[in-house]
Amino acid sequence: MHRIKVRVVEDVLDANNTIARANRQDFDRAGVRVVNLMSAPGAGKTALLERALADTGDVRVGVLEGDVEGSLDADRLTSLHIPVVQLNTANGFGGECHLDANMVRSSLAAIPLEEIDLLVIENVGNLVCPAEFRVGEDARAMVCSVAEGDDKPLKYPLMFRACELAVINKIDLLDHVDADLDKLLANLQTVHPGIEHLLTSARTGEGVDGFRDWLVSRVRSPATA
Amino acid sequence: MHRIKVRVVEDVLDANNTIARANRQDFDRAGVRVVNLMSAPGAGKTALLERALADTGDVRVGVLEGDVEGSLDADRLTSLHIPVVQLNTANGFGGECHLDANMVRSSLAAIPLEEIDLLVIENVGNLVCPAEFRVGEDARAMVCSVAEGDDKPLKYPLMFRACELAVINKIDLLDHVDADLDKLLANLQTVHPGIEHLLTSARTGEGVDGFRDWLVSRVRSPATA
Repeated sequence: MHRIKVRVVEDVLDANNTIARANRQDFDRAGVRVVNLMSAPGAGKTALLERALADTGDVRVGVLEGDVEGSLDADRLTSLHIPVVQLNTANGFGGECHLDANMVRSSLAAIPLEEIDLLVIENVGNLVCPAEFRVGEDARAMVCSVAEGDDKPLKYPLMFRACELAVINKIDLLDHVDADLDKLLANLQTVHPGIEHLLTSARTGEGVDGFRDWLVSRVRSPATA
Repeated sequence: MHRIKVRVVEDVLDANNTIARANRQDFDRAGVRVVNLMSAPGAGKTALLERALADTGDVRVGVLEGDVEGSLDADRLTSLHIPVVQLNTANGFGGECHLDANMVRSSLAAIPLEEIDLLVIENVGNLVCPAEFRVGEDARAMVCSVAEGDDKPLKYPLMFRACELAVINKIDLLDHVDADLDKLLANLQTVHPGIEHLLTSARTGEGVDGFRDWLVSRVRSPATA
């Protein structure tokens, strides 16, 4: 039974990758770079984007907001006056715990690709499944809050391995939680040696410039992944 | 395509419920009450259990630890000198983001049911899928850290609706985060009117007695769900 299950999962991922490549071709044709941004619930993805996307200079950014339901995060981003498209997995996608390439494909018509240079896809808050599904992105980044503890890379290694960048957020809480930053960074390097990381606090603004620079530099780097 | 997907999901959940009922019969036969404990990654389930299960009087407790991989949480609980069984979804279950009834069933032989009165099943850290899969439990509880923000009930309503108890944890951080406790509790009541809640800090110990009392009282209450 487990063998059959593994085969079904492999078929699903194969089909997903085919659609992801089609998304990628559409993004490339439009000259849009795409970042898939992932994290556990409440790690601070939206708060970071609120700060980081407030001034991206001449780089035009759009956001695709993935949530199971509702549009709370998209609403928070409206003050930025950038294109924001809401994608709910509860609408026709069974309330899935992650975005997949087909869901992103179904949203493409709503995203004004000709008006942006960079699309940030804010995935559903989940440290497991989003890491398994490519959606046509150029790069993957994840946010980990120090309030979640220093052991998360060891417990959810696939997510930390899948990403080019780990943003360690809520560092303003370091004096008030038991998580040890050195241990967190060591665990990160254990599961993904060489991974780039940034230290940020979306609350105080510390380190957000670095995240903005990383996002904006996607547009200037050659296509990867 | 979406219709087919919804049908497949329904079939999976039907099959799961059948196995969950079989688990429940085995638990009932052994006189063991079962709590399914869920949360986002890093909300503090294990830290709460470390404190709450240190002294449960004459109620004998065991823990089934669900993780994608590794045994970090189970290792933390060994000092309690109670039966702790590790279940990894990466071993033959495709690295699933939740426990299901079949996984729990496969662990039954390892759990000394005759030696315990209460089994706490610590689910995989995830606010979406664990809520969909019954595993044979009598009651469901979830932990929500105030560091995750006050909007989580609105963003992950199924989880908050599925549980009889919401434990609002890390209240020692309330002075250091933007989350508004009143708003969090109001959002909780919006998605699940009448749901019981507790305020706790696994770090300071505040409120943990209430969580212990709630767990222990499962053994004295008539079977539900």
